[in-house]
Amino acid sequence: MTIEHNLANQNDSVGIVETKYFNFEEKIKLENGLEFGPITVAYETYGKLNEAKDNAILVLHALSGDAHAAGYHSSEDKHSGWWDDMIGPGKAFDTDKYFIICSNILGGCKGTTGPASVNPETGKPYGLTFPMITLEDMVKVQKKLVDYLGIESLLSIAGGSMGGMQAMEWAINYPEMVRSAIIIASTSRLSAQGIAFNEVGRNAIISDPNWKDGNYYDSELPARGLAIARMIGHITYLSEESMHQKFGRKLQNKTELDFNFDINFQVESYLRYQGKSFVDRFDANSYLYITKAMDYFDIPQKYGSLAKAFEKCKAKFLVISFSSDWLFPPKQSKDIVKALMRIDKEVTYCDIESPYGHDAFLLEYKQQAKMVKGFLKSVKR
Amino acid sequence: MTIEHNLANQNDSVGIVETKYFNFEEKIKLENGLEFGPITVAYETYGKLNEAKDNAILVLHALSGDAHAAGYHSSEDKHSGWWDDMIGPGKAFDTDKYFIICSNILGGCKGTTGPASVNPETGKPYGLTFPMITLEDMVKVQKKLVDYLGIESLLSIAGGSMGGMQAMEWAINYPEMVRSAIIIASTSRLSAQGIAFNEVGRNAIISDPNWKDGNYYDSELPARGLAIARMIGHITYLSEESMHQKFGRKLQNKTELDFNFDINFQVESYLRYQGKSFVDRFDANSYLYITKAMDYFDIPQKYGSLAKAFEKCKAKFLVISFSSDWLFPPKQSKDIVKALMRIDKEVTYCDIESPYGHDAFLLEYKQQAKMVKGFLKSVKR
Repeated sequence: MTIEHNLANQNDSVGIVETKYFNFEEKIKLENGLEFGPITVAYETYGKLNEAKDNAILVLHALSGDAHAAGYHSSEDKHSGWWDDMIGPGKAFDTDKYFIICSNILGGCKGTTGPASVNPETGKPYGLTFPMITLEDMVKVQKKLVDYLGIESLLSIAGGSMGGMQAMEWAINYPEMVRSAIIIASTSRLSAQGIAFNEVGRNAIISDPNWKDGNYYDSELPARGLAIARMIGHITYLSEESMHQKFGRKLQNKTELDFNFDINFQVESYLRYQGKSFVDRFDANSYLYITKAMDYFDIPQKYGSLAKAFEKCKAKFLVISFSSDWLFPPKQSKDIVKALMRIDKEVTYCDIESPYGHDAFLLEYKQQAKMVKGFLKSVKR
Repeated sequence: MTIEHNLANQNDSVGIVETKYFNFEEKIKLENGLEFGPITVAYETYGKLNEAKDNAILVLHALSGDAHAAGYHSSEDKHSGWWDDMIGPGKAFDTDKYFIICSNILGGCKGTTGPASVNPETGKPYGLTFPMITLEDMVKVQKKLVDYLGIESLLSIAGGSMGGMQAMEWAINYPEMVRSAIIIASTSRLSAQGIAFNEVGRNAIISDPNWKDGNYYDSELPARGLAIARMIGHITYLSEESMHQKFGRKLQNKTELDFNFDINFQVESYLRYQGKSFVDRFDANSYLYITKAMDYFDIPQKYGSLAKAFEKCKAKFLVISFSSDWLFPPKQSKDIVKALMRIDKEVTYCDIESPYGHDAFLLEYKQQAKMVKGFLKSVKR
C-alpha cells in the first residue's frame, strides 16, 4: 500500500473519484450571437444527491482549474483535486450532506470542448476556429449539465477568482435555480491592470513562433510562450509578502552569487518550474480564450449597474476577500457587497487577513471553510 | 520655426545639448573579480561648473534611461530628456546655480560600453562575453568620469528607481566625495517580487529564437521577447489606480466588443505600443545585464546591515517615496530612512501622495521639485 493510497483513504477524503462526460448535440447560442455545438462536458461529483434533489452545490473553477476538485483519480496520484481542502466528509462542502458537482469550463482543455477539441465537421482541432466565448457562455453550458442531472434548484454555487465571476453570472442569469452564491477573491469586472497582465501573457503565447496562429496540435507546442504567460500569472497570484516569506532573496543551491545568467535565486527557480510544468497540463489556445473571456467580464457595464444586475437574484450571498490579494483586491469584493446591500439582498461579507495574496482561496482554507460551512447551514432547503 | 524649436527655447529649458564621450583605456576591477576595459562613457552636462568646482550634481538614470536627462538634441526633437521637468533654469536642479552631469550606465546601450559595443580584441560585439556587472561597477565608472571632469566633491547625487540604488552605492563607496544624496522611489535591495518580474522579462528575451545566446547583432533582433519584457515592466511602473484613470475598460477605436484576438481595450494598445517602440531604442542584452545588476543589489546583505552600510557616509540624505508605488513601495524607503536615523545621519523623508505608481518620479514633479530644491539649498558649499 502506497502513501498515496493512504491519502485517498483518509476519513475526510472523498477517496478515488472518476471524471464523467456528458455530451449534448444541440447547439447553444453564444453571447456573441454565434451558435455552437456539439459540446462535451467533463464533470465530477462528490457525495450523494438526496431524493428531494435539493442538496446540490455547483463548484466553479478558476483559469487553470478543471473538473477534478476533490479526491484522487487513482491510488497512485500524488496530488488531490484543486479544492480538496474544502470538499469532503465533514469539510466546508460536506459530502456527507451535500452533492457537489464540478465541471470543466467551455473553452477549457480538461475534457470539456475547447480549442484543442476535434471539430466533428472537419476532423481537425478547432484551434482559432473555436468561437470567442464569455463567462456567461460557460455558465450556459453548466446549466445544461445541471438540467441533465435532473436538478432544478442548486443549494449553492461557489467559486474563487474566475469561479466567483461565474457564480455571479449564475445568480444573475438563473435566479430561480440558485438559492445561494459564494463569491471568493473575485471581482465584478476585470480591472485595466488585470486586462494588462492577461494581454502580456497572451502576447507571449502569440509571439512564440511555434504558436502558428493556433495550428500547433500536430507539431511542437508554443511551450516557451505559455510558460512565460504562466510565470506572469504566478507573480500576480502571490503577494509581495508571501513571496518574501517563501523565497526572500535566498539563493538557489549556492551560498554566493556566481554572476551568470543561470538561476541565481530560489524565486527564479520556482517561477521557471511553474512555467514549465504548466505546459504539460494546459493548452495555449485555451489560455488565450479563457483570459479573453475574463477581460470581457464586466457586470456593471452589461446590466447598467451592479445593483441592476443583481436585482432579480433570489440567492443569498457570501462574499469573501483576502487582505493581501492585489489582483482582485478587497475593494472589488466590497463593491459587490455594497451593491447587494443597496438593493436589500441578504449578504455576508468577510475580508480574511492573509499573507497569501490571490492564491489564498486555494490555501487559506481554515477560516474560509468556517465561513462557508456556517453560510451553507443557513441556506433554505 | 517648428513647435519643437519653441520648446527648446523655452525660458526654463536647457535648450539644445549634445552628448559627449569620455574614453578610458585602463581596466577597472569589477565586483565579480574580473578586470574590464577599455570603457567609453556617454554623458551630458547642463549649467556651468563654478570656479570652486563645488556646484556639481550627478544625476543617475533608471533601467531604460540614458545620459540625455534634459533639453533637446536638435530643434527637430519631439521629446526632451527624461528628467527635463526637473533640470533647467529655475527648476529643481537649477542650471543657473548647479552643474548637472548625467551619464549612461556601464552595460547600457546609449553610448556607454555595453554588450552591444564592439570588443576591440575581437572586432565583434561583446554579446554574452560582456562581464556580469553590478550597480557598484556602474558607480565606479561614473567616478572615473567625475575625476576626469576635475570634480573632487559632488554637491549631490540624485536618482529615481535604479538611479536611487546607484546614489546609495555612491554615498557608501565614496563618502568623502558626496555631500548629499537624493534617493527617490528606490529600495536598498530588490524584493523577491522585483526579482520575479525581472526574471520573467529575461525569460521572454532568452526564449525568443532570435536571441541566439545573445549573438543577434548581425541578424534579426529578439524583438518579440524584448517587447514582452518591456510590457511586463510597464505594468509594474503604473499603479492600478493610474491604469484605471488612464484606461479603465475603455475600448480601442470601437464602441462594442468585437470578440476576436485583436486589440479590444485601450490598455492593450498602450502596452503593445510601449513594447514595440522600446525595441527601436534598447538592446535586449543590455536589458538582461542591467536587470541582473538590479537583482544582485542588496545593501544590507553586502555590508552586514543598512546601518553598517551607511556608517561612513558624510552625505545628508533626502529620501522620497510615492504612495501608490507598488514596485518599490514606501515601506522600502522608510527602511532606508530608519537605518539612517538610527545612526544619527541627517535625513529628510517625504512620502508624496500620488496615483502614478512607480513612474511618479518621472511625472509627479511639482511636489518632488519643491522638496529637491529646498534640500539642495541646505547642502553646504
